[in-house]
Amino acid sequence: VTFVLVAGSTETAAIDGISAAGETPATMAHTPAADAEIVAYGRPVFAPIVPVSPAGCPTPGVVTRAVRDLVEFDLVVADAGMAGETAAPTVAFGDEPGGDIRSPEPVAEAGAIRESARAFAAAHPDDELVIGETIPGGTTTAMGVLRALGESYGVSSSLPANPLDLKREVVADALAASDLAAGDLDGQPTEAIRRAGDPTLAASLGLLEGALERGASVTLAGGSQMLAVAALARHAGVTERFEIATTSFVAADDGVGIRAAADALDISLQVTDPEFEPGEHVATDHYLDGVAKEGVGMGGALRLAESAGVPKSAVKERLFERYGALVEDNGV
Amino acid sequence: VTFVLVAGSTETAAIDGISAAGETPATMAHTPAADAEIVAYGRPVFAPIVPVSPAGCPTPGVVTRAVRDLVEFDLVVADAGMAGETAAPTVAFGDEPGGDIRSPEPVAEAGAIRESARAFAAAHPDDELVIGETIPGGTTTAMGVLRALGESYGVSSSLPANPLDLKREVVADALAASDLAAGDLDGQPTEAIRRAGDPTLAASLGLLEGALERGASVTLAGGSQMLAVAALARHAGVTERFEIATTSFVAADDGVGIRAAADALDISLQVTDPEFEPGEHVATDHYLDGVAKEGVGMGGALRLAESAGVPKSAVKERLFERYGALVEDNGV
Repeated sequence: VTFVLVAGSTETAAIDGISAAGETPATMAHTPAADAEIVAYGRPVFAPIVPVSPAGCPTPGVVTRAVRDLVEFDLVVADAGMAGETAAPTVAFGDEPGGDIRSPEPVAEAGAIRESARAFAAAHPDDELVIGETIPGGTTTAMGVLRALGESYGVSSSLPANPLDLKREVVADALAASDLAAGDLDGQPTEAIRRAGDPTLAASLGLLEGALERGASVTLAGGSQMLAVAALARHAGVTERFEIATTSFVAADDGVGIRAAADALDISLQVTDPEFEPGEHVATDHYLDGVAKEGVGMGGALRLAESAGVPKSAVKERLFERYGALVEDNGV
Repeated sequence: VTFVLVAGSTETAAIDGISAAGETPATMAHTPAADAEIVAYGRPVFAPIVPVSPAGCPTPGVVTRAVRDLVEFDLVVADAGMAGETAAPTVAFGDEPGGDIRSPEPVAEAGAIRESARAFAAAHPDDELVIGETIPGGTTTAMGVLRALGESYGVSSSLPANPLDLKREVVADALAASDLAAGDLDGQPTEAIRRAGDPTLAASLGLLEGALERGASVTLAGGSQMLAVAALARHAGVTERFEIATTSFVAADDGVGIRAAADALDISLQVTDPEFEPGEHVATDHYLDGVAKEGVGMGGALRLAESAGVPKSAVKERLFERYGALVEDNGV
């Protein structure tokens, strides 16, 4: 199994109140680089922060890293427009962070990113790819492409109170900036990303397409954003079945309705409950309060652990150790 | 253990007769990218070739990859001016291939490459780094910096008949192009690389320095080029002990005299004999004829296998399987 972590940025994340993938907007710019380093090396190396939400919830990247300590898988970090410098080894598909989707062309490179990711996955030798993402603001850009495509699926949030009104407003402005009505880009996935998405969506779509075209199995590891990637693939004419693996926190979010969406898109949905228990640990209590929910491939990583027969208790034990080491190193 | 493969290019390799790290000069440009992909993925992905010598000897990268199948270690590919596109995830320390050392400034970026590699290794969490290289023409650039520093150590060759007269002539021209006499850059390692070296030497030196300054243990995995890196470190004032791990093929090369050189530089030398036997396999017979000898961290990988208690026979078995798969895929 190869886990591909697609890391990127969008200026959309800087809109006040849109994302919890960072303590402040300034630190949020480093979240993708830090997540990549945590999964690759166990802790930030060049990134100056450990990503936490404003409330102090540690990045789900720590869960993915904890699983990586217990289950063998290869890691590829795909750079799809990361803003901050990273010490993680990367394959670069995009050079530039995505722009604010309220501008006319937030992802000018969408076609090139999709194609280079497709070529990579088509040539990659592993029969099994798991694709995760880290991009603050990603649920808003996911909503942007879904509406441009004419899909009405909901999106989740890394905040306990999903700022859905704000997201709808931002997406309405995004479509207006490109003179589009919802559904105008039905069947035009690259165009939907170029006008209303972010670079990680282009890279994830290309990876999915390239792997499927050579008969590999693909798991999209995530929530709303991976649902958007799945919708983009169907709009691209991809007919093969593939899988979405997500957490029980996303599955429990009625605003998304991921089960119904997966059915409608003809996708297998795997939901894994990490069995966090109230009061067990400060690192996991936030999740029970609805913070973070998913990200950095957390649902896919939990699924890999389950498939390998690793007990939930072992994942949690490792997670608490990893979290403890991060707190010690960086004073989270 | 983290194995850092420093991959780069130098136009010096295009000098007729200087290197065997490619079937032809045109394919040689892809050797570092292909080596990185073979170690990362088991076979070339974007690189259009499997590196073989003109006589058909497969790259020592296949040995390193075979060991990676048997011994767990993390891999980081350091891009120090690779010429060809690679699908391997990389940390980039240099943007440009090195120039022909017969020009005045073949590695204009030497200082910046050394510093970014140093910063990376200083921040990396692993206590044990193994540093290998892949750069066609690298023994000639190694000789260039050794002479600029005033060191008279010999260098090996990937060819059975080392074209030493040609290398000496190229190095003499290199020094002349910078108005230098041998030894003029005593104590000036960056300057020696900038005037007569290649980008992988700058990256390897920086990695060594950064890891040693935080007390990590470092093994330079290779022959002549790693000897040059060791000399550069001593000229940089590095006093800590570290290790060179190389193959018995390099150790048997009297033109190098690596044992005496290691003693003079106060470096532990680990020599590993892969126990290839005549007539055993086409992939290994070339080595017994003096082709390749070392490269892509082969000596360090063999050492890791030995330390992990993996028998030589298991390494060879895996090597023959990997070689067979490459032949099947790419018609080597």
